[in-house]
Amino acid sequence: MAGDARALARLISLVEDEDPSARAALAILYPRTGRAHLVGITGAPGTGKSTLVNEMAKVYRRRELTVGIVAVDPTSPFSGGAILGDRVRMRELAGDPGIFIRSMATRGSLGGLARATSDAVKVLDAAGYDRVLIETVGAGQAEVDIAKTAHTTIVVEAPGFGDDIQAIKAGILEIADVFAVNKADREGADSTVTALEMMLDLNGTQVGRWRPPIIKTVAIRGDGVPDLVDRVEAHYDHLRDSGLLARKEEERVRDELVALLQHELTQALLASLRPGELDEWVRRVARREADPYAAAQSLVHRRSR
Amino acid sequence: MAGDARALARLISLVEDEDPSARAALAILYPRTGRAHLVGITGAPGTGKSTLVNEMAKVYRRRELTVGIVAVDPTSPFSGGAILGDRVRMRELAGDPGIFIRSMATRGSLGGLARATSDAVKVLDAAGYDRVLIETVGAGQAEVDIAKTAHTTIVVEAPGFGDDIQAIKAGILEIADVFAVNKADREGADSTVTALEMMLDLNGTQVGRWRPPIIKTVAIRGDGVPDLVDRVEAHYDHLRDSGLLARKEEERVRDELVALLQHELTQALLASLRPGELDEWVRRVARREADPYAAAQSLVHRRSR
Repeated sequence: MAGDARALARLISLVEDEDPSARAALAILYPRTGRAHLVGITGAPGTGKSTLVNEMAKVYRRRELTVGIVAVDPTSPFSGGAILGDRVRMRELAGDPGIFIRSMATRGSLGGLARATSDAVKVLDAAGYDRVLIETVGAGQAEVDIAKTAHTTIVVEAPGFGDDIQAIKAGILEIADVFAVNKADREGADSTVTALEMMLDLNGTQVGRWRPPIIKTVAIRGDGVPDLVDRVEAHYDHLRDSGLLARKEEERVRDELVALLQHELTQALLASLRPGELDEWVRRVARREADPYAAAQSLVHRRSR
Repeated sequence: MAGDARALARLISLVEDEDPSARAALAILYPRTGRAHLVGITGAPGTGKSTLVNEMAKVYRRRELTVGIVAVDPTSPFSGGAILGDRVRMRELAGDPGIFIRSMATRGSLGGLARATSDAVKVLDAAGYDRVLIETVGAGQAEVDIAKTAHTTIVVEAPGFGDDIQAIKAGILEIADVFAVNKADREGADSTVTALEMMLDLNGTQVGRWRPPIIKTVAIRGDGVPDLVDRVEAHYDHLRDSGLLARKEEERVRDELVALLQHELTQALLASLRPGELDEWVRRVARREADPYAAAQSLVHRRSR
């Protein structure tokens, strides 16, 4: 809370390791969360997402706002990639105490990653960063789950991706609050914008509903990034003024609570089994001597007995 | 079991809807599973995966083997895309009773999709299909989870994707048993093959370990597909002869059991709460009057009291 970046980094490592002391620290920090504007940035590999995030951070800094960045790569379950990208960007933004950057690597399950990401965001929020940017790769359910953490989600497209119908997924409409068409100096940028506009038109418009703006950017030159940031800020104002912010927060809390319950209940049950008990059931089911549903039922009821 | 395709389709719909009667049917069918060779096919959108799967099905049919196809699109959480693709391919393979095709749409959570997919595969296995092809889009953890269902996983690359370092993820090595470089008549196919070979070389070789073969295909013409199928069959023989098949099956069963436990425990807890109890906790946590960990603990312990 005193702004010690090394203490922050250590706490996030404990969060990633699911260390019990992290849980205790998070419980203490929790009342201080809820002040940062959480911005998700997502898009396919090659759209220039990371460069865009760096440029956004610079725009925020010029506006005297502090920025926390959490970069998550759910497509690289065995890490590696995230760490490399991290070093490159560390070099570019290094030395500014108003920016904190952290990459999250998947350790095991997707559920674990989503939990750790949400907790890392809480740490940065409680530490007082004004904006927390959560960057994720891909276009899958993983991304949808992680995007739920954010107030405002930017979907990044790029020419050559956007004209592929498969790249513009129906699901994107449900998560995008703002579209960035990056690499907009390349051929095809206008047709990507047109394709997105058409998709938004097809989706219909309603009075009072937020229509995601489409902003052209050239992140490597910083072009369009101040405009993008303005639209992101406008979306937050819209959420707050319409009362949607509170509703969104309740949905987020509900999802988080159910995920925590799932995790806690399963860990408690597995810990209550005698050594080898799960293995025995696994062997019986693998040999088709029992079916998995009956096995699960037995294990669940065994506990309450 | 008598080969009624409409009964199969109905049962898979019940499975998707998580209907209680589906659970009972699956328990009865379970002893008949474990005979099909389960083949996962995965890759980015635009690599021509679906066409490749169709051509593989035709090769299998020429070899007098029956084929079940389960197409899963975890990147399209709000459905739509899968259904369209389904109709196109239905038309092409229609009328052959030796082929059964089913698209799975996400309804809600990724966990729900993985569960439904695994159950649909069991239904087709029990129904006696010799090969079950499980097609998934993307390159995320979602795909890794679903790939775990398969004995043999084909990762499909295409020129122009493969030379992007970000497209060839470190994680791919952990799931690929066979690589297909599709659209191999396009420029850059050889450099995609070289990039994959280099990645495999970097990963090192061990005596007795399976090195994923890299097969060039042009799916729209059927070129290379019989060779691809040969390699897939060879991988299954390798699994069986090395004893890895049994080990892989135990891992799959363990993952499935833990996922079932997680689901059952959470459903039971949520059902045991009094109306509005979860909502009250959600509101308290959203207002920062309680932290989510304490709330989860209270809800978990409330049950055992």
